[in-house]
Amino acid sequence: MDTPKTVTVLGLGLMGQALAAAFLASGTPTTVWNRTPSKAAPLTADGAVLAPTAARAVTAAPLVVVCLTDHDAVRELLAPLADSLRGRTLVNLTSGHSDGARALARWAGEHDIAYLDGAIMAIPTAIGTEHASLLYAGPQDAFDAHHATLAALGPATHLGTDHALASLYDVALLGVMWGALNSFLHGAALLETAGVKATAFAPLANAWAGSVTEFVTAYAEQIDTGTYPAHDATLDTHRATLDHLVHESEATGVNAELPRFVRALTDRAIAAGHGADSYAAMIEQFRKPTT
Amino acid sequence: MDTPKTVTVLGLGLMGQALAAAFLASGTPTTVWNRTPSKAAPLTADGAVLAPTAARAVTAAPLVVVCLTDHDAVRELLAPLADSLRGRTLVNLTSGHSDGARALARWAGEHDIAYLDGAIMAIPTAIGTEHASLLYAGPQDAFDAHHATLAALGPATHLGTDHALASLYDVALLGVMWGALNSFLHGAALLETAGVKATAFAPLANAWAGSVTEFVTAYAEQIDTGTYPAHDATLDTHRATLDHLVHESEATGVNAELPRFVRALTDRAIAAGHGADSYAAMIEQFRKPTT
Repeated sequence: MDTPKTVTVLGLGLMGQALAAAFLASGTPTTVWNRTPSKAAPLTADGAVLAPTAARAVTAAPLVVVCLTDHDAVRELLAPLADSLRGRTLVNLTSGHSDGARALARWAGEHDIAYLDGAIMAIPTAIGTEHASLLYAGPQDAFDAHHATLAALGPATHLGTDHALASLYDVALLGVMWGALNSFLHGAALLETAGVKATAFAPLANAWAGSVTEFVTAYAEQIDTGTYPAHDATLDTHRATLDHLVHESEATGVNAELPRFVRALTDRAIAAGHGADSYAAMIEQFRKPTT
Repeated sequence: MDTPKTVTVLGLGLMGQALAAAFLASGTPTTVWNRTPSKAAPLTADGAVLAPTAARAVTAAPLVVVCLTDHDAVRELLAPLADSLRGRTLVNLTSGHSDGARALARWAGEHDIAYLDGAIMAIPTAIGTEHASLLYAGPQDAFDAHHATLAALGPATHLGTDHALASLYDVALLGVMWGALNSFLHGAALLETAGVKATAFAPLANAWAGSVTEFVTAYAEQIDTGTYPAHDATLDTHRATLDHLVHESEATGVNAELPRFVRALTDRAIAAGHGADSYAAMIEQFRKPTT
């Protein structure tokens, strides 16, 4: 490389600070800006340049990473900076809705700004390690041009060109997390009634969760082909076992809402004729708008 | 070993057949019985002995494994066989409620029958492989005496002496499976609206599910100690992101019931004063009986 890659980070909350620190740790010259400049002190001590204004920060590097509290704050900050951003690549790592990302992409397009919307699947302390996963959506060439620099934050995945994808994957993956956590917590509450510690249940739950990824892989194929052969267990069988979980929850006096909800959803799928299909057939229930 | 271990399998449905086949494959002399004897044909061809009556089957081995359609069928079959079972070890691998397991344990105790209740975390085709996981609950000495024989079915775990544990772990683990599958299916439905294939989402969902096991391990410790420090994210933060998932579900026209349910549960935890705690604090909601 002839010239070192440089980067600007706008917004120094906990996450923004972690992002700037990871760029610095990778040897990338880093300019930072924050509405409250004092937040930059630990970073400037490590070699970051604190820009006096957001406009000066933006013109300091070809790659501008923004991480604020929400999309409204991003729009408010960037609107007056359109001319300064022209010709640069803007990476928005602020959590937000996919429609906000698409709107920002339109605005960026009007101002000749290359735009990547991103999502951070990590807590601030994991940034810069292999345990952080960062998802990007937007033009492939913008991602390719800055992939090496962005890799300082953690493993980077380009999801596609549709700017909505980062937000959608973000919440879909968080949904997977809540699904796993809630079912673990429900099971832990159930087993607690028989004197089982959560720390005794956790290793079995985690090992079993590993097996479940094989179902996910198999069901994904079925969903994409639209056929749901029950190679493992039919929805009718799942329904019968769900009854066991509802019964045990009620009998032990723990909350039964979660299994009852799943049972009701299964009932709908069976009523729609999927009793002899695999659990993948449940996708058709999730596709339907809430009534 | 002086004499080879022997085993009897009562019930030759799909799962019973797989159990008997795995015993035979491990070189264990195996006697089988089924109400409809013709089901035994593939097994006798592989060396199994078909007993003419259930009583004769029971007295053929010190270890008797029963796998029927439900606990009622087990009680009906075994009630007249109490004297034949005396002094032997009975392993019940029939799915059922924990109260049924405890009742069967009382009956076995009255008749001097060593009893293990078991749960099979596998489909029939996985029996006899390392991918099958079998859970046992009941006297430690009975488990230890027959562990080597039972290992032919797949890795065996002794959960404890309370006979209820196999059924409770069974449904708790199945709950973890449904939790993972439903959240994957919901995310797949959401991403489908942006043209993403389920097979594109699955690898990321599975990799992320691996990361979630670290949360489970950390939260299990917090649950057992009863304190929920938010080292990663507060419930207030989760609540804000759950709003994103509800919004995206509604905006894309997919089913929003699942995230709405989780949001409502989170609201209750926050109302109870856990907004600044970690997600582990949600255990207190799952402990409460359904209102």
